[in-house]
Amino acid sequence: MAVTEDLGRILSIQSHVTYGYVGGKAATFPLQLLGYDVDIINTVNFSNHSGYHRFDGTKATADELDNIFSVLEKNGFLQPARVLTGFIFGAEALRVVARSVTKLLENAPQSIYLLDPVMGDAGRLYVSPDVIPIYRSLLPKATIITPNWFEVETITETKIEDKASLQKALTILHETYSVPNVVISSIPVEKWLRDLTPSYIRSAVSDKEPSLLCLASTRAVEGNVSRRGSVVYAGYVPLIPGYFSGVGDLFSALVLGHYFPLQSPSDSSRSSSSLPPLPHAVSLALTKTHAILRLTEQYSSSLPPDDHTVTDDELDNLDPERRIRRMRGRELRLIQGRRILSGETMGEPRSLKEWEDFWKSN
Amino acid sequence: MAVTEDLGRILSIQSHVTYGYVGGKAATFPLQLLGYDVDIINTVNFSNHSGYHRFDGTKATADELDNIFSVLEKNGFLQPARVLTGFIFGAEALRVVARSVTKLLENAPQSIYLLDPVMGDAGRLYVSPDVIPIYRSLLPKATIITPNWFEVETITETKIEDKASLQKALTILHETYSVPNVVISSIPVEKWLRDLTPSYIRSAVSDKEPSLLCLASTRAVEGNVSRRGSVVYAGYVPLIPGYFSGVGDLFSALVLGHYFPLQSPSDSSRSSSSLPPLPHAVSLALTKTHAILRLTEQYSSSLPPDDHTVTDDELDNLDPERRIRRMRGRELRLIQGRRILSGETMGEPRSLKEWEDFWKSN
Repeated sequence: MAVTEDLGRILSIQSHVTYGYVGGKAATFPLQLLGYDVDIINTVNFSNHSGYHRFDGTKATADELDNIFSVLEKNGFLQPARVLTGFIFGAEALRVVARSVTKLLENAPQSIYLLDPVMGDAGRLYVSPDVIPIYRSLLPKATIITPNWFEVETITETKIEDKASLQKALTILHETYSVPNVVISSIPVEKWLRDLTPSYIRSAVSDKEPSLLCLASTRAVEGNVSRRGSVVYAGYVPLIPGYFSGVGDLFSALVLGHYFPLQSPSDSSRSSSSLPPLPHAVSLALTKTHAILRLTEQYSSSLPPDDHTVTDDELDNLDPERRIRRMRGRELRLIQGRRILSGETMGEPRSLKEWEDFWKSN
Repeated sequence: MAVTEDLGRILSIQSHVTYGYVGGKAATFPLQLLGYDVDIINTVNFSNHSGYHRFDGTKATADELDNIFSVLEKNGFLQPARVLTGFIFGAEALRVVARSVTKLLENAPQSIYLLDPVMGDAGRLYVSPDVIPIYRSLLPKATIITPNWFEVETITETKIEDKASLQKALTILHETYSVPNVVISSIPVEKWLRDLTPSYIRSAVSDKEPSLLCLASTRAVEGNVSRRGSVVYAGYVPLIPGYFSGVGDLFSALVLGHYFPLQSPSDSSRSSSSLPPLPHAVSLALTKTHAILRLTEQYSSSLPPDDHTVTDDELDNLDPERRIRRMRGRELRLIQGRRILSGETMGEPRSLKEWEDFWKSN
């Protein structure tokens, strides 16, 4: 049973906020619940996430991060089984993290590294452009990356608008950057993409409801049956309207937490699935993340009208407190959903299925 | 069942370490498991605790803490049901915390505040003496305080060496400083103290094994049957040899997490006990903390001889790595013991009993 396992250590390098659940606050508790000791390096210490527009706090400087890494190394504490990096503020700090993680992985090549190249969303870069080349240089060290659609386009310099460009972007990630496992979650589904996905994948949601697509692509290795660049799995989930912060951070943590490259028959949560390691992990992460979002949305809907307004930047700009009240009502319900996170009551499974003809040109 | 409850928010102001479990790292996960949203202000960000002797990191300045509090307040986030303060570095930072907590409690007088006045242990002050008056000024705001023996002596300026001096120290805390609930855990039991405790309390452990005493004293209120200053409960637990860090931080968090001034019949973990709120909470905290220590000690004993040496400062000073290896093997096994913390499997209960004649002079 997952609750009694001891799964080793994860070094998590992310932002910290006092109030709410983004970055490390969204990742740590779910990983601890699964049985991981989480070693936490806070890249920032903020009052709350920046989406509230009113926030304060401090950022760890490159030197401060370097000192922490250096003492951890001297003390023999830099030998985690897994590494997770999320939002890191600024190119200098990212450079220190990249150097330290690279060194750590050179000393322990069997470590699993999940890199979430947090750069932007929905067409907008919210980090300085000089972090892009640093992320590119880190990609070959990663076991799994979890960019969103916009981050894939940014990294690969490819506008994805049809099957050929999607194939091209994945090929760049797998071949040019040697990433074995690419997970792209929360893809807003436009018509061309929906039409492209096989009906046995698409049928997970109704044609009429807005939905999101999740893709998991594992690079083909020698001996693999696939003749092309990767084996691709995909799944649809219904879109839950409005904006929630920290969803990507939670999802990435869960993908890492549920990923076991060598399946052990002793553990039911790993062996109950007939899926390969990556789609297995992504299916569990998707199921749990979606269930937490549902729980959060239910809570949010139960609040008084003032705390449960629609997203409207114009009104928010006229009354900043309006935005704060809404954001606050939409903080992830991780604590209340801890039985979802531990796997006791996950709700409807959201399993990925293999996209068999993905690499065929059509 | 405890696992599904939503118990509200706790604002926790403590130290953060990347590796290991002290301060906030020892308090947060257990409280989240119980069902609290924990709002975390990190007073320091260190690589590991200072007991390793080799550590690095940064301390939040008074201004930085002030800014965080001020934004949290503006955003309406300073309305937790409970407040927990532990180790705070330096008088200036403590002054900011004291001011902010005082203001918070003035705005929300029903909030429960647990103050752990971390100053020193075993006869040694490890903070600057100018924090002592600040802690004294904070005492009247606290619902519960959890000083150790040495901290009680320091605050009350009373050397405790017999029943009269113990009564005097408690009277000072309850009356001079108006603290309703005083919990003193991990009291090393000298002969006079053992002889003093009633046999029905002492019998929880064998006369031959070294043990620790835990005292919980609730100030008598009007209408209370006790004629003297407080109602005192006490319990013995076997001493687990050697030094473990973070035990007091874990214990204090659990006392706060299990304290319910108004008992609700809907919750089994609260109503199963016939004890009043304070000794009920302390009994659960003692039971869980002791079980976690046992688990940690078992793990530590299973390590190779090099990682499982006895505490010996001379040898440690000759070989600092020796200390680091030992400390590392003695980090609390909170993750592995999460079923203990959530209450699923707590092991032998360590219940306090009322010390009926405590206020009699004898």
